[in-house]
Amino acid sequence: MDGVVHRHTKPGTSPGSLSGRAPVPDEALDFTLVEYTPEKCEVLHGVEVDECRFHLDSPDRTWIDVAGRPSSEMLRDLGTAFNLHPLALEDVFHGHQRSKLDLYGNQGFIVLNDPAYEDGEIKLRQVSIFFGENYTISFHDHKLDIFKPVRDRLQMPGSRLRTFGIDYLVYALIDLVVDRKFPLIEALANQLEMLEDEALGHSEETTLGRIHQARRALVAFHRIEWAERETILAVMRPETPFIMPETRTYLRDCFDHAISVLELLESYREMCNGLMEVYLMQASNRMSEVMKTMAVITVFFMPLSFLAGIYGMNFERDVGNMPELGWKYGYEFFWVLVTVIVVGLFWWLRRKRWL
Amino acid sequence: MDGVVHRHTKPGTSPGSLSGRAPVPDEALDFTLVEYTPEKCEVLHGVEVDECRFHLDSPDRTWIDVAGRPSSEMLRDLGTAFNLHPLALEDVFHGHQRSKLDLYGNQGFIVLNDPAYEDGEIKLRQVSIFFGENYTISFHDHKLDIFKPVRDRLQMPGSRLRTFGIDYLVYALIDLVVDRKFPLIEALANQLEMLEDEALGHSEETTLGRIHQARRALVAFHRIEWAERETILAVMRPETPFIMPETRTYLRDCFDHAISVLELLESYREMCNGLMEVYLMQASNRMSEVMKTMAVITVFFMPLSFLAGIYGMNFERDVGNMPELGWKYGYEFFWVLVTVIVVGLFWWLRRKRWL
Amino acid sequence: MDGVVHRHTKPGTSPGSLSGRAPVPDEALDFTLVEYTPEKCEVLHGVEVDECRFHLDSPDRTWIDVAGRPSSEMLRDLGTAFNLHPLALEDVFHGHQRSKLDLYGNQGFIVLNDPAYEDGEIKLRQVSIFFGENYTISFHDHKLDIFKPVRDRLQMPGSRLRTFGIDYLVYALIDLVVDRKFPLIEALANQLEMLEDEALGHSEETTLGRIHQARRALVAFHRIEWAERETILAVMRPETPFIMPETRTYLRDCFDHAISVLELLESYREMCNGLMEVYLMQASNRMSEVMKTMAVITVFFMPLSFLAGIYGMNFERDVGNMPELGWKYGYEFFWVLVTVIVVGLFWWLRRKRWL
Amino acid sequence: MDGVVHRHTKPGTSPGSLSGRAPVPDEALDFTLVEYTPEKCEVLHGVEVDECRFHLDSPDRTWIDVAGRPSSEMLRDLGTAFNLHPLALEDVFHGHQRSKLDLYGNQGFIVLNDPAYEDGEIKLRQVSIFFGENYTISFHDHKLDIFKPVRDRLQMPGSRLRTFGIDYLVYALIDLVVDRKFPLIEALANQLEMLEDEALGHSEETTLGRIHQARRALVAFHRIEWAERETILAVMRPETPFIMPETRTYLRDCFDHAISVLELLESYREMCNGLMEVYLMQASNRMSEVMKTMAVITVFFMPLSFLAGIYGMNFERDVGNMPELGWKYGYEFFWVLVTVIVVGLFWWLRRKRWL
Amino acid sequence: MDGVVHRHTKPGTSPGSLSGRAPVPDEALDFTLVEYTPEKCEVLHGVEVDECRFHLDSPDRTWIDVAGRPSSEMLRDLGTAFNLHPLALEDVFHGHQRSKLDLYGNQGFIVLNDPAYEDGEIKLRQVSIFFGENYTISFHDHKLDIFKPVRDRLQMPGSRLRTFGIDYLVYALIDLVVDRKFPLIEALANQLEMLEDEALGHSEETTLGRIHQARRALVAFHRIEWAERETILAVMRPETPFIMPETRTYLRDCFDHAISVLELLESYREMCNGLMEVYLMQASNRMSEVMKTMAVITVFFMPLSFLAGIYGMNFERDVGNMPELGWKYGYEFFWVLVTVIVVGLFWWLRRKRWL
Repeated sequence: MDGVVHRHTKPGTSPGSLSGRAPVPDEALDFTLVEYTPEKCEVLHGVEVDECRFHLDSPDRTWIDVAGRPSSEMLRDLGTAFNLHPLALEDVFHGHQRSKLDLYGNQGFIVLNDPAYEDGEIKLRQVSIFFGENYTISFHDHKLDIFKPVRDRLQMPGSRLRTFGIDYLVYALIDLVVDRKFPLIEALANQLEMLEDEALGHSEETTLGRIHQARRALVAFHRIEWAERETILAVMRPETPFIMPETRTYLRDCFDHAISVLELLESYREMCNGLMEVYLMQASNRMSEVMKTMAVITVFFMPLSFLAGIYGMNFERDVGNMPELGWKYGYEFFWVLVTVIVVGLFWWLRRKRWL
Repeated sequence: MDGVVHRHTKPGTSPGSLSGRAPVPDEALDFTLVEYTPEKCEVLHGVEVDECRFHLDSPDRTWIDVAGRPSSEMLRDLGTAFNLHPLALEDVFHGHQRSKLDLYGNQGFIVLNDPAYEDGEIKLRQVSIFFGENYTISFHDHKLDIFKPVRDRLQMPGSRLRTFGIDYLVYALIDLVVDRKFPLIEALANQLEMLEDEALGHSEETTLGRIHQARRALVAFHRIEWAERETILAVMRPETPFIMPETRTYLRDCFDHAISVLELLESYREMCNGLMEVYLMQASNRMSEVMKTMAVITVFFMPLSFLAGIYGMNFERDVGNMPELGWKYGYEFFWVLVTVIVVGLFWWLRRKRWL
Repeated sequence: MDGVVHRHTKPGTSPGSLSGRAPVPDEALDFTLVEYTPEKCEVLHGVEVDECRFHLDSPDRTWIDVAGRPSSEMLRDLGTAFNLHPLALEDVFHGHQRSKLDLYGNQGFIVLNDPAYEDGEIKLRQVSIFFGENYTISFHDHKLDIFKPVRDRLQMPGSRLRTFGIDYLVYALIDLVVDRKFPLIEALANQLEMLEDEALGHSEETTLGRIHQARRALVAFHRIEWAERETILAVMRPETPFIMPETRTYLRDCFDHAISVLELLESYREMCNGLMEVYLMQASNRMSEVMKTMAVITVFFMPLSFLAGIYGMNFERDVGNMPELGWKYGYEFFWVLVTVIVVGLFWWLRRKRWL
Repeated sequence: MDGVVHRHTKPGTSPGSLSGRAPVPDEALDFTLVEYTPEKCEVLHGVEVDECRFHLDSPDRTWIDVAGRPSSEMLRDLGTAFNLHPLALEDVFHGHQRSKLDLYGNQGFIVLNDPAYEDGEIKLRQVSIFFGENYTISFHDHKLDIFKPVRDRLQMPGSRLRTFGIDYLVYALIDLVVDRKFPLIEALANQLEMLEDEALGHSEETTLGRIHQARRALVAFHRIEWAERETILAVMRPETPFIMPETRTYLRDCFDHAISVLELLESYREMCNGLMEVYLMQASNRMSEVMKTMAVITVFFMPLSFLAGIYGMNFERDVGNMPELGWKYGYEFFWVLVTVIVVGLFWWLRRKRWL
Repeated sequence: MDGVVHRHTKPGTSPGSLSGRAPVPDEALDFTLVEYTPEKCEVLHGVEVDECRFHLDSPDRTWIDVAGRPSSEMLRDLGTAFNLHPLALEDVFHGHQRSKLDLYGNQGFIVLNDPAYEDGEIKLRQVSIFFGENYTISFHDHKLDIFKPVRDRLQMPGSRLRTFGIDYLVYALIDLVVDRKFPLIEALANQLEMLEDEALGHSEETTLGRIHQARRALVAFHRIEWAERETILAVMRPETPFIMPETRTYLRDCFDHAISVLELLESYREMCNGLMEVYLMQASNRMSEVMKTMAVITVFFMPLSFLAGIYGMNFERDVGNMPELGWKYGYEFFWVLVTVIVVGLFWWLRRKRWL
């Protein structure tokens, strides 16, 4: 179950303390710094923390993107360098946070999620965004360069990203994270269609298990997206600092996307429940089939066996008992009886629609 | 599932970019322009974009109706010509949007849905309405001239449509789209009644599938209408520009219709669930019938076979065993026993109400 | 399903147009006019429309009650005569409206419902009430003189109805319509009790069908009452014109009655679901009974038949096989075996609580 | 179902009219009057109405408690004597009201419920409390002296009841009625535990019926308490007259108790649903057991019977058919075959975990 | 069920009276007093009540922690000594309270819960916190020194606990109690995984019982945490006295933890329901298996037994009946027939996927 339980620090430790997490293989973090004004845009890969700090202090807009899960020391350094709140740092450190917007003094902190769908399970991958008057610092758990499309657009002179303020960059990052859900949903949808074919066909226990798993994934996904929806709503609120009214229009569009994702997820949940019903119905139909076959065999052969039993009795023929046995066509008579019974039962079962 | 998943653009593309949609067969769009004042009303079919622009600038009220799904280039032209917001254009382009009201500066943008019910599935067909102080521009996915009744009423001198402002035209369009749901519901209702007959009769697996399909259609339909209900509520709000108080009274009526649609859909959903129960109950009843028949046959013939088995035993009669076999009426005695057993069981099963 | 679907006009027709309804057998309407002041009260039966108009213009309080469903022409005349809003007239014309309060300028319009319970179905019968400063006009679908009790109270000098304003009359009409639900619920309750007896007894498929029907009736009824509850709440609001604070106290009492109705309906819905469970449980119990009987028969006779089968084998006794067959008391020995087996199985099944 | 349906007056009767109730055996009412100031406290049993009125007019705090259901005449007298609102009197008269707070001019009217749990059903017993600036009048349906504990505390000099105002007395009465629910819940809980034992043991149809009954009682109880919760909330509101801020703290405590009751009821409802599941599971387990036994018997004896059948065939041995029958140890051979089959099947069923 | 029912005092007893609880074994309470300023911090174990009072009056911040359930006399002494409200004392005395924040004059009173998970059941252990301008008094039912981590952090000079006000200490205590839920959830999760293995394997009735128990524990736990969530929200509200804005940021973090706990609990509840389904499905699969085996045996042996029965008939061969019995290879012919039937049935059942 999501591994979320394992994130907790020891109860009673000081808030903002960066400890208690299972150590991650110590990969180097990938820093990408973008400094831009409407006129120019400079991209620096693999910068150092100190260099970043220098750029943050410049009047130009600065966007620092950190890929990978930082260790506690690194995060403490980053916190001091970029002046980030300890509670926010704790959230970045542990990952698996619920999506939210926190405001610390004159700094906004957004947690989003870019989940992966692997082996039928939703794996959380946190995206954290700090923003201030003229800077944005983004962290994401995966080493993938997920924000490349935004950086590419930033480099195009005259684009809205360049001409609008830092808030539009924040919107662009949120929008990208939200839109990354659509391919995921498509993957889920494909799997559900495969499961539908299976449920209507004949594979057995694994099918049920996988329907169940898909349902759990959909539930987990829905929870993530619901929190994200709330977060976008919070960012759109007029009280949120640094967000300009014109950007709010774009956030509204992004919010509509989040709702689309939610509605799709709800549709798929219903479809999933429907699948479960179809599966159960098929199982019950198979069972009915078995019972019916057994019943038909019983109905046919019980009377016939009784008939054969009668003529297997040993009543003494001498005193006139069981004259049929002495008839010339007694055996043929028996078979005629059998045929009559079979035809009669056949006609009867036919009328009952069993055959 | 609605094909909605396939609408998404690549994550990270600039908002308002018109790309990523599966290309539609490039049909020419049908433009219909109506320019009217309380005194006169002029209808032009098949106008050009430039001509439209000219009319938009005139002080008379102008309604441009565009039928068919525009290609990205055409839409970009229209956007520049009519001064439409890029995000709204994106929504028109992709179709399959959730119903909503967006306000862009001094322009309102309404998304509605006029779904079709084909092959047991709800197909979305978007209707988009832009409105400003003295113009309305409507787009709809289908090539049908769905707004003809409104245009006809517009041409009648002295009608409310002519004398009231552009907001009343917007209301008339919304009202028409809402009311177009009633025939659809009627079609659904007819199908449900057909399915009810089937469930109470004897068709099998396709019935369940079709009940399930109808349920999914009802769910999809309900979601569409719910969003529409919210949209009408938003249009009715006093903050919405260009909507006069007297028109709000009419919108309220339209809102009542939307609620009627919703309540009907809810009734049919309940009926659908009831159908499912009836179907399952019938299946279970059939199964019970099978078991009962088998049980009756078993109850009758097992004792009889045992009886025949007894008199088929080979105990030596010489030493006095099995005297019945030597009786003069031994065989008749056997049949009397059989009759007694049959009558007894018959009476017993009768009392148990099995027969 | 309620016939509600059939109420819709052709989409795109002008709002307030009185057409599209299935024609009702053209019965004459029954007009009853009451003009009263605290001092005097005059009741006129079978008045003409023109006469009514004259009374409406007088400073005395006037109540016009119209029984029966008016045709479109008649309604148009009434609309002009009494100055009623076209949208409200449309609602009166079509019937089957959701209960609501609409305010048109200085006129209130209340829709209520006085459903009938016939053949297991809820039949809607609309009650429409227009009210202004010193007049009330009530329409009701049925030709029954449902408002007679109120009229009788009006004729009693010194009664609250006479001394309070027109708003108290409106309250009295609403209260009567709400209270008319109680006998209906009682009828439903009686039927449910009958069904309970059946479910615990033995009638079959019709029982399930009727439980299902009762459930649908309860759902429909609940929906009607819920809307009515909202309507009363709306009438109680301080914004509603012409409703005096002292009358609001009485409306609150009426509102409490509506809630009582709702709670009763909810109780009966639960009871109905419980009935369904009981019915299913009984069906499953009967099935269990069948299986158990079959199992008992099988358990008893299979071993016995095998025993008889053994002694029916033809092994040659000459070489010493099957000495039992030659014993003097072989047959008695067989019966002893049978008895032992029967007693043993009996004891065993007893212990298992099958017998 | 609660007998609530039967409380309605004829629709259209004047509000506040005291008629339409089934007559109660005309018991004399028990009046108890307490007049107190912080300094002194006087208790009078069996006072007359006129005497009460005299005390109400005195400046001291007066509490009149009326035990038993008053007849309509008596109530009309009390109404005039104590100046009570006709609608409130109607509620007292009919009983079975939903818990609520009504404000009539400068008089508050609280309806509470002190239900009894008899024969598995919740019986409503209404408690009505009128309160004004310096008086409280309480009515309760039962002849029991339920408010004795409060009266006893009132007689203790220096107690909060004496020193605080009349509002604290009102609180004390509400608190007592709420707390009287705990023993009731305990009784319900005991019964549920008994039913749990039964469901896990073997009693049959009555168990299901009683679980169902307990569930209905819990639902009814929950509804009562939910209304009571709302009533206390209404009394706590700052708008409610005569309730001092310091008393509100105590009411909050009482409100917490009501919530505790509600949560307990919800727990028991869940437990009840769980019981239903356990019961069904046990029934299904028993059914499985029956089927398994039948299957085992069938699996064992069908092959054996066939074997016996083979050696019961009459093929002529002269031409060399069925040599087994002539073997010296043919019969022993048969028994060896039987043993082998039995052991084989035993081993097979063991492995399948059927035995 | 939680033992909550047994907490109630006799209805009608004075609020705040410390009686009616089952007596707890009279353990001595453990008092721990901490007096601190940003500069110094003094910890005293096993102090007396009088000494505590002296420290409370000092201008330094004081935290008194009382471990164990106090008797009524002790509590009354503490109440007078520390000036605690009688209603709050009652809540401390009875334990098992719903989590809440109460404000009594210039004193806040928080009830939290630190449940234990023993023998599959949630045992409530109440934590009560009083706080004022410069003091906090905490009570907890268990004798464990659960607040040691906070005390340890308090003793570290320069820590936030020392430099921030008393409100931060209150936050730290709440945070610890909330975080103590994570290990509990982990224990529950482990048990659920164990149960999942069982449900997919073969243990029987106890499994169902334990799944049911786990579900009840999750429901109880969810209720506790939901109340706690509300309490934290109440503490965060700006109206709550003594809580500084900077502490509110930390409380928000704590609130996020509470929501995480709630979401985890909801996930596990869903998993639990899924488990129930898996268990039922497995039971139904086992039943199907039994029926199928029985059906296969019946289908094979019924026709074979009939065949053997035929050749066991005694028709007289002299007149030419049953010539097969006289054939030289009659017996072989019989076995060929058997083989053909067996192969045919085998092929048939194979095609039906029964074998």
